[in-house]
Amino acid sequence: MPTETQVREALSRVMDPELGRNIVELNMVRNITVDGPRVNVTLALTTMGCPLKDRISEDARAAVAALEPGLDVHVQLSEMTEEERRKAFGQQAPEQTAAQKFSNVQRVVAVMSGKGGVGKSSVSALLAVALRRKGLKVGLLDADITGPSIPKMFGLHQAPGMSPMGIVPVETRTGIKVMSINLLLPSEEEAVVWRGPLISSAIRQFWTEVVWGDLDVLILDLPPGTSDAALTVMQSIPLNGVVMVTSPQDLAGMVVRKAAQLADQLKVPIIGLVENMSYVVCPHCAERVEVFGPSGAGRTAAQLGVPLLGSLPLDPELATRADNGDIESYAAEAFAPLADEVWARVPAVKCTPLFAS
Amino acid sequence: MPTETQVREALSRVMDPELGRNIVELNMVRNITVDGPRVNVTLALTTMGCPLKDRISEDARAAVAALEPGLDVHVQLSEMTEEERRKAFGQQAPEQTAAQKFSNVQRVVAVMSGKGGVGKSSVSALLAVALRRKGLKVGLLDADITGPSIPKMFGLHQAPGMSPMGIVPVETRTGIKVMSINLLLPSEEEAVVWRGPLISSAIRQFWTEVVWGDLDVLILDLPPGTSDAALTVMQSIPLNGVVMVTSPQDLAGMVVRKAAQLADQLKVPIIGLVENMSYVVCPHCAERVEVFGPSGAGRTAAQLGVPLLGSLPLDPELATRADNGDIESYAAEAFAPLADEVWARVPAVKCTPLFAS
Repeated sequence: MPTETQVREALSRVMDPELGRNIVELNMVRNITVDGPRVNVTLALTTMGCPLKDRISEDARAAVAALEPGLDVHVQLSEMTEEERRKAFGQQAPEQTAAQKFSNVQRVVAVMSGKGGVGKSSVSALLAVALRRKGLKVGLLDADITGPSIPKMFGLHQAPGMSPMGIVPVETRTGIKVMSINLLLPSEEEAVVWRGPLISSAIRQFWTEVVWGDLDVLILDLPPGTSDAALTVMQSIPLNGVVMVTSPQDLAGMVVRKAAQLADQLKVPIIGLVENMSYVVCPHCAERVEVFGPSGAGRTAAQLGVPLLGSLPLDPELATRADNGDIESYAAEAFAPLADEVWARVPAVKCTPLFAS
Repeated sequence: MPTETQVREALSRVMDPELGRNIVELNMVRNITVDGPRVNVTLALTTMGCPLKDRISEDARAAVAALEPGLDVHVQLSEMTEEERRKAFGQQAPEQTAAQKFSNVQRVVAVMSGKGGVGKSSVSALLAVALRRKGLKVGLLDADITGPSIPKMFGLHQAPGMSPMGIVPVETRTGIKVMSINLLLPSEEEAVVWRGPLISSAIRQFWTEVVWGDLDVLILDLPPGTSDAALTVMQSIPLNGVVMVTSPQDLAGMVVRKAAQLADQLKVPIIGLVENMSYVVCPHCAERVEVFGPSGAGRTAAQLGVPLLGSLPLDPELATRADNGDIESYAAEAFAPLADEVWARVPAVKCTPLFAS
């Protein structure tokens, strides 16, 4: 039978994937009992809401079970007190990077949906363009690592500069600072075939290693889903709020409501809902066509208890300008009031991320 | 300084996340030298194309470095020979599950895009409906764990049955067997906030633990991206081929070309490209409107060297029927010839997945 010390040593190989340190060091291991082949381990999580709790628990179980055949390992979870949590985070709070010392970002707004293809990237880009037109200093972080579309929309192809302070974002012709994985690839067509941990680490580096400088606002374009990318952004970047994007389909609404649950669980305020692709104006007869059926966004906004900030048409001209890298010259009449609405509603206070980075 | 045995022991805690066994057991550790504080480790990967190689390498480095402070650990990667690979896989080839013994799936076709919102789920569902109308026995596996939309399209709400052989898929009114995470959730609106490893494990279970029975074809609806879900499907399920879905935008084409690279790297044949949302027919004046701009799919198909199987219109009626759970009653005139085209082109031979499951 293993000794308590062997069990503890085995547990010291289990990493908290978010904090990047092992659970013994993080003082998460609370109680170990070995009773014949039965090993009981109690772990104190930073929060029982921790979306990784199943993984940490299973990693711990597997690490101890690997000590010798036939062990019956049980892992129980508890929660740290406020005091313990502060201590655990205090210990690990990293030094500010050089890039962070040279950055001063007033507001961080994530654009999210859960659902793919509803126009998160278009909304992110148009929001950045509209706020830049108001004279604000704007950054745009493309957190979609496997399907990045921001650089193409702005016609950006050059690689970011490297300075002693960190990575220097590429500027668009109107002066929006952009960072995207596609700016770092040998070709924009190159696939990024990474599993979650690498995706998360790339996103964290776009926050910690990029010299954003003085910004009034940084817009984050999130990929679809409620998995690694969304979790990492919400858990490790101090956001002021998120804008949710949906399409008229109730099917999209269902997935958007899932994403809103994630924001709620992580206590990130939802600024409001944008309905995209609401209709198209027929260029032949000038009638409106509801291509995705009648709007379900009002209902989704009401269910979420957030304002419906506006409905945007599908505009073939936007698609063409985005394909041509010329989104900054798009007139975007329908978008300007929506951007004003978003800007007026951005909470002044940033959330404290669960894990500082 | 650590001994070679200690280094090997540390490495035995490093798991191959795909195979679920440690790298020592898998015979990946080839050479260990300890020279003062410098530790050199050589690992033989199953394939240098292994998308997890960075992660395994970094996990190995970290495990050895954790032995004592100040170690300078270098990990070099090499590749197994065909013979060694066969042995490694032979060792780990799992027993068929009971569900697999009761299943006999002739063809497995994945529907993929890389890009979100281009209609992968609609294409998957319409393909299943069209093949079912031909009298085939059809299954539909929803591999989109964070944004599942298949059950809603078919109006399915009941939970799958549990039998001694495994999970029994839910049947639609026309007899398509469906499995989706949304059938297992307490509410279809419930968020699934999981990181990659849990997503992968859910998808593998939908393959190994579901009693699919006799099927002529199983359609897999993949989520956007080239991360965990797509990798797991391509690496652990024996596919006959993939259908790629794109929209007319070149922006979508760019992301689809990334996904095609993944299929190529993993040697899964691409059956062809489907362009979705090509145009809408204005219900007022009956003219065609190219809502996403002029088609770029021909160019994408040519670049990929695959046939363009067809272009589908955006149809508000499809959106409405999908929202109402009534996709099986959609006439789908435009779709039937496309489904025939796909079916005629499905390769007869299944790929051998890198990792059997």
